[in-house]
Amino acid sequence: MRIDIITVVPDILKSPFEASIMKRSIEKGLVEVHLHNLRDYTSNNYKQVDDYQFGGGAGMVMMVEPIDKCISKLKSERNYDEVIYMTPDGETLNQGIANQLSLKGNLIILCGHYKGVDQRVRDHFITKEISVGDYVLSGGELGALILCDAVIRLIPGVLGNETSALTDSFQDDLLAPPIYTRPADYNGWKVPEVLTSGNFPKIEAWREEQAYQRTKERRPDLLEE
Amino acid sequence: MRIDIITVVPDILKSPFEASIMKRSIEKGLVEVHLHNLRDYTSNNYKQVDDYQFGGGAGMVMMVEPIDKCISKLKSERNYDEVIYMTPDGETLNQGIANQLSLKGNLIILCGHYKGVDQRVRDHFITKEISVGDYVLSGGELGALILCDAVIRLIPGVLGNETSALTDSFQDDLLAPPIYTRPADYNGWKVPEVLTSGNFPKIEAWREEQAYQRTKERRPDLLEE
Repeated sequence: MRIDIITVVPDILKSPFEASIMKRSIEKGLVEVHLHNLRDYTSNNYKQVDDYQFGGGAGMVMMVEPIDKCISKLKSERNYDEVIYMTPDGETLNQGIANQLSLKGNLIILCGHYKGVDQRVRDHFITKEISVGDYVLSGGELGALILCDAVIRLIPGVLGNETSALTDSFQDDLLAPPIYTRPADYNGWKVPEVLTSGNFPKIEAWREEQAYQRTKERRPDLLEE
Repeated sequence: MRIDIITVVPDILKSPFEASIMKRSIEKGLVEVHLHNLRDYTSNNYKQVDDYQFGGGAGMVMMVEPIDKCISKLKSERNYDEVIYMTPDGETLNQGIANQLSLKGNLIILCGHYKGVDQRVRDHFITKEISVGDYVLSGGELGALILCDAVIRLIPGVLGNETSALTDSFQDDLLAPPIYTRPADYNGWKVPEVLTSGNFPKIEAWREEQAYQRTKERRPDLLEE
């Protein structure tokens, strides 16, 4: 998989790709991530990428031209499966969308910043608009990181133990059951006896029951779908 | 506001706090963010922070002891309003939660990693569990960044123009209307005439109608609440 991220603040995105699972997946050659600074695609001397809103109002708007130039250059080099715009009014990211995107070959992710991008960018270049949740962020960069992490960890070979991703919350529409590790007694706080019983069918049944109960209590909406 | 983030991979968190709005809010003295490496709170020689699950199964579990030590040390130094655990089965973050947290003084954010933390941490130390969305990430670090950004940008003085945050999506339960900037004609793609009319009451009415239509089309659930 190849991911091209277009942003006005590439610095934000650096450290998460230089640590942990995203770094290892890049080192293993399973993913390529390329950051593109939108300012490199401006035609004015001030490397200006934004301007005032037509009709007035607070907040700057990212201009069409530099985005057009950057996306057009990338598209002239290879085919892309999706050109994604990170925006709070996009389709809300969920595990199903992450699963689907993990099967793609080449993705462009455009990060909005300031008030957002000129609507004509959305109308003419974007094939998919994604929101990571119902809250406003200072830019699309952190959303792009979330999307990359959610997708990259699903690519076969990225996680050491493939069963690990399949037993996570949401993959079976249930939240994960409680988990415990040593010591079995910490300051008098004890691990549920069943987990140290060695009776694996019983452990499996307990986990299923706990996962169901936790989902029912915290996220009944997941059970209704 | 002071935010203490507890993590096993502090490197992931560095660059976002060294760029853009989060950096400027720290420089302005409006927010303090402290990163704590959980490995500094281990009592074993290998700086081990995780161990196998009781009852078997894929994925490592973060142990109680180092987390207990780190949280207890912080709490001995000052009072905290909330000890937040980032987890996919927590309460789903939304703008209302971000608004509430932006009024707090001191927050601890614990980032889960691997399969998650020992349930006893959640039972005895955590006061609030937050999810950034219905998808699984390789750790709580990116969720913590999202939470910090959503909260920090609401603190008075962080955004240059305070009206900017108030006109964002979700603050009035409506998505934002389309926005445009120069040029008025780009390759034949034109800005809606009303926006260049100079008739501000008409522009305002157009924006309200657009915001309502976009919300109705994309997120009818927001109108039902």
